[in-house]
Amino acid sequence: MHSLHPLFHPSSVALVGASSDPERIGGRPLRFMLEGGFEAPIYPVNKSGDTIQGLRSFRSVSEIPHPVDQAVICVPVPGVEAAVRDSIAKGVRAIQIMTAGFAEIDAEGRALQARIAALCREAGVRLLGPNSLGLLNVPTRFFSTFSTALNGLKPRPGSIALATQSGAFGSATYGMASLRGLGFSKIVATGNEADVDVAECIDYLVDDPETRIICAALESCRDGVRLRRALCKAAQAGKPVLIMKVGRTEAVAAAASTHTGSLAGNDVVYDTVFAECGAWRPQSIEEMLDIAYAFSVRPALPANADIGIVTGSGGIGVLMADEAGERGMALPPLPPAGREAALALLPFAVASNPLDMTAQVTSVPQGVSRSVATMLDHTSWGTVFAYLAHVGLSPARFAGTQSELIAVARNHPDRRLVLVMLSTPEVNRALEAEGIVAFEDPCRAVRAMAALATLAKRRESLMPQSGPEVLPRPRIGLTGIDTEDGAKRALAAAGLPVLPERLCTSAGDSAEAARAMGFPVVAKIVSPDITHKTEVGGVMLNLHDVEAVSAAHEELMARARRLRPQARLEGVLIAPMLRGGVEVILGVHRDPTFGPMVMYGSGGTAVELFQDVAFASAPLSPARARQLLERVRSTRLLRGWRGAPACDEAALVSALCRLSEFAAAHADEIESVDINPLVVRPDGAACLDAVITLRAGAAEPKQAAHAH
Amino acid sequence: MHSLHPLFHPSSVALVGASSDPERIGGRPLRFMLEGGFEAPIYPVNKSGDTIQGLRSFRSVSEIPHPVDQAVICVPVPGVEAAVRDSIAKGVRAIQIMTAGFAEIDAEGRALQARIAALCREAGVRLLGPNSLGLLNVPTRFFSTFSTALNGLKPRPGSIALATQSGAFGSATYGMASLRGLGFSKIVATGNEADVDVAECIDYLVDDPETRIICAALESCRDGVRLRRALCKAAQAGKPVLIMKVGRTEAVAAAASTHTGSLAGNDVVYDTVFAECGAWRPQSIEEMLDIAYAFSVRPALPANADIGIVTGSGGIGVLMADEAGERGMALPPLPPAGREAALALLPFAVASNPLDMTAQVTSVPQGVSRSVATMLDHTSWGTVFAYLAHVGLSPARFAGTQSELIAVARNHPDRRLVLVMLSTPEVNRALEAEGIVAFEDPCRAVRAMAALATLAKRRESLMPQSGPEVLPRPRIGLTGIDTEDGAKRALAAAGLPVLPERLCTSAGDSAEAARAMGFPVVAKIVSPDITHKTEVGGVMLNLHDVEAVSAAHEELMARARRLRPQARLEGVLIAPMLRGGVEVILGVHRDPTFGPMVMYGSGGTAVELFQDVAFASAPLSPARARQLLERVRSTRLLRGWRGAPACDEAALVSALCRLSEFAAAHADEIESVDINPLVVRPDGAACLDAVITLRAGAAEPKQAAHAH
Repeated sequence: MHSLHPLFHPSSVALVGASSDPERIGGRPLRFMLEGGFEAPIYPVNKSGDTIQGLRSFRSVSEIPHPVDQAVICVPVPGVEAAVRDSIAKGVRAIQIMTAGFAEIDAEGRALQARIAALCREAGVRLLGPNSLGLLNVPTRFFSTFSTALNGLKPRPGSIALATQSGAFGSATYGMASLRGLGFSKIVATGNEADVDVAECIDYLVDDPETRIICAALESCRDGVRLRRALCKAAQAGKPVLIMKVGRTEAVAAAASTHTGSLAGNDVVYDTVFAECGAWRPQSIEEMLDIAYAFSVRPALPANADIGIVTGSGGIGVLMADEAGERGMALPPLPPAGREAALALLPFAVASNPLDMTAQVTSVPQGVSRSVATMLDHTSWGTVFAYLAHVGLSPARFAGTQSELIAVARNHPDRRLVLVMLSTPEVNRALEAEGIVAFEDPCRAVRAMAALATLAKRRESLMPQSGPEVLPRPRIGLTGIDTEDGAKRALAAAGLPVLPERLCTSAGDSAEAARAMGFPVVAKIVSPDITHKTEVGGVMLNLHDVEAVSAAHEELMARARRLRPQARLEGVLIAPMLRGGVEVILGVHRDPTFGPMVMYGSGGTAVELFQDVAFASAPLSPARARQLLERVRSTRLLRGWRGAPACDEAALVSALCRLSEFAAAHADEIESVDINPLVVRPDGAACLDAVITLRAGAAEPKQAAHAH
Repeated sequence: MHSLHPLFHPSSVALVGASSDPERIGGRPLRFMLEGGFEAPIYPVNKSGDTIQGLRSFRSVSEIPHPVDQAVICVPVPGVEAAVRDSIAKGVRAIQIMTAGFAEIDAEGRALQARIAALCREAGVRLLGPNSLGLLNVPTRFFSTFSTALNGLKPRPGSIALATQSGAFGSATYGMASLRGLGFSKIVATGNEADVDVAECIDYLVDDPETRIICAALESCRDGVRLRRALCKAAQAGKPVLIMKVGRTEAVAAAASTHTGSLAGNDVVYDTVFAECGAWRPQSIEEMLDIAYAFSVRPALPANADIGIVTGSGGIGVLMADEAGERGMALPPLPPAGREAALALLPFAVASNPLDMTAQVTSVPQGVSRSVATMLDHTSWGTVFAYLAHVGLSPARFAGTQSELIAVARNHPDRRLVLVMLSTPEVNRALEAEGIVAFEDPCRAVRAMAALATLAKRRESLMPQSGPEVLPRPRIGLTGIDTEDGAKRALAAAGLPVLPERLCTSAGDSAEAARAMGFPVVAKIVSPDITHKTEVGGVMLNLHDVEAVSAAHEELMARARRLRPQARLEGVLIAPMLRGGVEVILGVHRDPTFGPMVMYGSGGTAVELFQDVAFASAPLSPARARQLLERVRSTRLLRGWRGAPACDEAALVSALCRLSEFAAAHADEIESVDINPLVVRPDGAACLDAVITLRAGAAEPKQAAHAH
């Protein structure tokens, strides 16, 4: 049994701070549960009064002469700790604290919250909150919340679960969903997350047989590992997670951190992790509900991202095709046999995809349903849309077509059929009962189904949470990585391609090294104390003979001694001068929530001007590394751009994998790695410059940054 | 009086093809008008029967013993021409043809349509259609349409006008709007546009006092000048035009052209023209209706793009701020006095922007309205949003806040107040009556208001349709522009910066030219028959002395003679070899609908990889040229990128203006101009290569394309 079970399924509940006034915060949960018909025993606890809303009341939890499985606490802050101790002493398995005024307020609140969390942890009691709006188990009518959204909108059972940190966000979603007629399995607001967080709720909801799709919202995430694992578990179980994370822009991230008292992670990292772990990140509550609706009607992802459109209006068909194209869905052409069949049915049709039935459809018996059937019969497209204008507003007139479409849908149980039309709620309910989705706005229909198709694709390439791809990696000694030379040696040891360079301590040494590797060469000053080599004229390119190399060695040392007299000079690095190839940037960034993220982008100006970079969690398998390449537009430059020979992508993929393994093995030590550039040529790749920065407090010196 | 007045306001109507069956196409318009109470005389015309739906019927229009102002024709195709002749003979001022089967079907249909259009034109009769779904003048209940959308949804009067080509698109929009309770002034579907097109309808609707905002949809546009003029007229009149144009993607444009039988214009050109002419291009019908709703409630654009957010939920506030940031709206910080006032009211508030009232607001009298008032009082932000959860679902409880908010709004008549909440239609109607907009979804609210703010900005920089900026430009002789040399001479004559180059016909000539301009130089073969100079080794760079130049001249001529023996060789172009600076691309493309469009983009790979280009209609004023620069990200490269000196933007702006004037003056002759690259340096700019292509059939040889 999941350890959150007692929180969602209490066998009895004490309501500490219960109020006789059904409008007050302490009165609402009791009222909602009494009105809803929660069947387990409820014990109001309140210092004054023997009866509360018709139930016998107690002065403390310990006074209750029956077993108590869960305590819901909404007394003011000063009474909370005592109530928790009292509840633990009574033997509860779970506690909800609705009271606000803890870590979100000040240091004192943080300390109190930590004390209460420790009490619960020691007692093996699960804690929701504090500052939680509560939770709902809709089928059991355990409506343990003080949200006023329940005043006008009764919870309706359904297969959508909702887990949010913010109660207000949860209420907003609940309200909008309820007005649309959507039903829920469980709803939970985790508040300050002293113990239970959204990630663990997702983990629980994956196991919940009443839940088929999970809506979630985060303002922050403190345990990236847990969140990743929960999302992947959901994807594997075929339960999509639609997870919002507000604070998309930087300015806004500041506002979120004011609000939640916790650091908002890097937004692009959230995008990356959600995608890797098979989740979808909606940009609005409405989008989230559209997708949840489409899935809850028929809990199956589309078999592929191909779509067909049957339409009574050419213009609307094109509008939907536009939207589909922008969302990554393909509209393959109708196969010849399908075209023939469509034209046999409707000679004036535009028998393409979209299939425009034209006004002729109204004069052909079963014209609509046979057109839809034709498209389904002659293709294997995952989703077929039918745009039917406003037919659903006249249920009597539509009844025939409706039955026919239901029969068509039954004949194609592995396909998704989506109607776009204006209709009455009754018509929609009848269609939904048969797994047919109905949308009013053509573009919203396409967007929702595109999200489900994307989720299907993501599910196929889930980031592995265990298994051979996540083997422990060998660690490498990191001593001396505070220079370019040292950083490159570490990367070479990790398996990245590095040129046959040599750190030389005399002019003769340099000349000899250059002769051995062949001209021309590059010479660079090496010092852990010189951050920007160019500032001291520390790089000399294109040296063509031994004289030039000797002179360069002396000159580089002299310049450095003159301009940085205190710097420890380790010598001069002699490296072959490489020409041609395409420059890319590889990097590692340690995200505070999700650990080492690998970055890949184009060299030149594309990163800065166009943000043409992509991230992925370390470590990377070759398949995931190749996916990373596809997410950067400049990768096209590697593939024979303007007649240039194609570059060695395998070498790039290998470099990404080795870098990611290095980053994963040293996740606790490394703050960042910058390989700028890695040059990729038709016959391999090479790191031309590298900087590794260690985490503050790790074994090595705090920071080392180098550049050409 | 506008010439479309008789179409929208007939003083009497003959319905040719009227049917006794109120469900048939010929019966519906009559039924809708009788049910609606259209007050002008209606004369059914039908070969059989004396009475139709209770009205006396006639066998032909000429038989009607009263004046007839408009004829609405829905007889089958073979009878249409006779009905038109009959109507013209009777003296109608306007004709609608609902019958389909004309230009959209085949050549015969096109010929018939052209004949009918000519008849009307000669008679001075305005023609709507053929293949039109009809039109509605809602206030007069002139419901001349056979759209079944009117079966269930009665037209509601309002200030939104709707003009579409496609009747189905119009019906879809009408249906969705009606379900939301939105009302219309006029609705028209132009169909095949043999005479009246959407642009002219927009022009008419700008003059219509009952219309405040215009929704439109195009599948194609045959008269770009008329459309531009209508859009600008609307913007100047303060009547926003929300204009959809389907066929955003190329694959899709093919489908649209199948559908409409007319060429879809270049999509990015539509974007450009709509923006220049002060219109907004919605991506979905729902978005269009959101904006129309927000404007119709209060027909004023926001005074600026600054917004404030008052929220009861930190998370929703951040969500809205995210959306606003992505839509180009700014959230300035709350000024100190505003912060103080907010904290005086609600000590626990996060007194920032968003202003998070926190749960404390529920315990402070008039907390919500005073928070909103505080923000309005202390700022001049054009739009203030208030997120109020689900308060509007309890009208009785909300009544107080509602009155207070209405009072606040009245105190700030020049500001836009937008509530985001769940509420009943009655609550919304009451707020809307006071100019307060109410949305359910936070993101949709922000998007709609962002569109209005953008429209306000666009209105300030409308493309001039006349006046000093659109003076006639001097024309330049275009003889000889079929070589690089000739193209550059034409551009120089037009005022663009060209280096002091010389076309040389002997090696000695070349050497002399090089000596005169200074070394190093570039030498290029010049021939109207050599399209790609690099293919014949026709460019030699970096020539440092007279010997090298002489040799290069001979070598270039020899290569060309060897590889292109038939080519006419004009000689060798000697030009200074320029180093440094930033390369950009300027171009002109003649759009078949909108005429010459100027293109500006970055040199290098940014155009191809990132579509980092922008277009503008020619001619350009300096102000519009500067706006064009702002729409290209790579423009940052000109502004001191990575420590480089800033380039001469004024020279670039001047080059854009001169090029645009040249393009405008020669709009009938020039197909395209490509200046690739124009190099911009700290001290000026220069066209390094140029190709001008004339239109097929223009005075000059058909085509000339050149490249380095």
